[in-house]
Amino acid sequence: MLQKIDTIKEIRKTIYEWKKLGYTIGFVPTMGYLHDGHKSLIDRAVLENDKVVVSIFLNPTQFSQNEDLDSYPKDIINDTKICEQAGADLIFLPTTNEIYPAGFSTYVTMDKGASEGLCGSSRLGHFNGVCTVVAKLFAVVKPNNAYFGQKDAQQLAVIKQMVRDLNIDINIVGCKIVREADGLAMSSRNSYLNADERVAALSLSKALTHSKNLVDAGLTDVEKIKFEVEKIISQEPLAKIDYVEIVDTIYLKPIKEISSVSMCVIAVFIGKTRLIDNIIFKSVEDSNGNNFT
Amino acid sequence: MLQKIDTIKEIRKTIYEWKKLGYTIGFVPTMGYLHDGHKSLIDRAVLENDKVVVSIFLNPTQFSQNEDLDSYPKDIINDTKICEQAGADLIFLPTTNEIYPAGFSTYVTMDKGASEGLCGSSRLGHFNGVCTVVAKLFAVVKPNNAYFGQKDAQQLAVIKQMVRDLNIDINIVGCKIVREADGLAMSSRNSYLNADERVAALSLSKALTHSKNLVDAGLTDVEKIKFEVEKIISQEPLAKIDYVEIVDTIYLKPIKEISSVSMCVIAVFIGKTRLIDNIIFKSVEDSNGNNFT
Repeated sequence: MLQKIDTIKEIRKTIYEWKKLGYTIGFVPTMGYLHDGHKSLIDRAVLENDKVVVSIFLNPTQFSQNEDLDSYPKDIINDTKICEQAGADLIFLPTTNEIYPAGFSTYVTMDKGASEGLCGSSRLGHFNGVCTVVAKLFAVVKPNNAYFGQKDAQQLAVIKQMVRDLNIDINIVGCKIVREADGLAMSSRNSYLNADERVAALSLSKALTHSKNLVDAGLTDVEKIKFEVEKIISQEPLAKIDYVEIVDTIYLKPIKEISSVSMCVIAVFIGKTRLIDNIIFKSVEDSNGNNFT
Repeated sequence: MLQKIDTIKEIRKTIYEWKKLGYTIGFVPTMGYLHDGHKSLIDRAVLENDKVVVSIFLNPTQFSQNEDLDSYPKDIINDTKICEQAGADLIFLPTTNEIYPAGFSTYVTMDKGASEGLCGSSRLGHFNGVCTVVAKLFAVVKPNNAYFGQKDAQQLAVIKQMVRDLNIDINIVGCKIVREADGLAMSSRNSYLNADERVAALSLSKALTHSKNLVDAGLTDVEKIKFEVEKIISQEPLAKIDYVEIVDTIYLKPIKEISSVSMCVIAVFIGKTRLIDNIIFKSVEDSNGNNFT
């Protein structure tokens, strides 16, 4: 039976009971408007834990003033259905005031490392907001395992770094990107796209697939690969590149040559909608170093 | 038997075993050079918990460039003796590299509230360093109760706010100031004082005691009380006031009139040594609202 809880005090009681009974806890933090990408996280959490908590909280501190906090899509009825079908045990649905009560002023901030560059440059303060809310939710839910999508590659790297840096005793599990049949990475923000934009958005996955083909064929020159990725996206009139980078998978720092496991990460505006996507390159030399798959 | 452990990996094992056996854990974080003030914290932790951990870590991130990190006194042999006599179970003695390994870049920061003003103004970045290391130690030791001295009144208020803000499920216990027979509040930094300075340092407790006498006699005008405190300290040629404030006990913000529980907090340079001290005022109306004693 799926429980819905909206206060920290109440959820602590349930977690405490579960811990006392020796249950392991899996946790999937989300901002709601769940899709098959989220469902794959919940599915995996259900497989690997005795109890599974899904949080739905549209976190204001990770949005800048000019971003889409107010228009972010919501569908709590469908979210509940997805959690129920996947076999989650508890939805945590706090209000903004429950998470950030009056007087709140402590933040978890990351000034270097995984949070630097890429979305950290385009979305100032974004990862401090992510770290703060995730640290709070971790402290409330106290999971053994927490599940994050590889689609938000930098977020996953930032959470892994936060957990290492702050000695948070939780196993962070990165889960494969789930794509539509035509290749578009699933995202709540895909709902913003009109029909033309939906077609234009395919340029992201098309460009990434091409980059992987180039690497698989032996190309190691990062500038050449980036040029090819940018070329494909630029052919799409509705697309405007925010960044295209090839980076390592720990700190997400640009590399010069493909020599071990690495990834191509991109952010592209399709009309007004900013989409991100990425693909992991496994080099021939490195067949087991990929911690994302 | 007192154990000494210097790695996070090792202490996690012990904590895990204790948790499995259902033991409650008390934690006393320190920077070493323990005195009777620290001892009173350990004594109380021993009374209230099944197992007690004392950490000794001179935390570089809470010192500014021009402060006394390098000259801070150390005496690990005496520290061990005090822990042993008080009945602590474990000393956690990590190296700087164990706490801040290469690549470390996540901090717990507090931009408003209890960290603002007072020592937060005089010692820039100090409380971010305190919050970061305490959050890390909390995540490693996972105590039920953690003990802090009321002598560092703002630190105690900051830790309480951090725990509230980040939903850290640990009970923070503030413990009474322990004083030398002549009134000087115990501090590791008292060891810096020469004979003349040691005498001059009495002006702090003398001024505070006088302020409490004034309040007990019915004076409620904060400016008048501050004037009297400053007068006593200023009569001492070796003393230079950093701040004298009368504040509430939650956010440590200046108040105008003594109406409920409040405190006088002071920081004074005696020669080159910066000392802090404070005293709590209980108003006639409020006989049970003092959460510090």
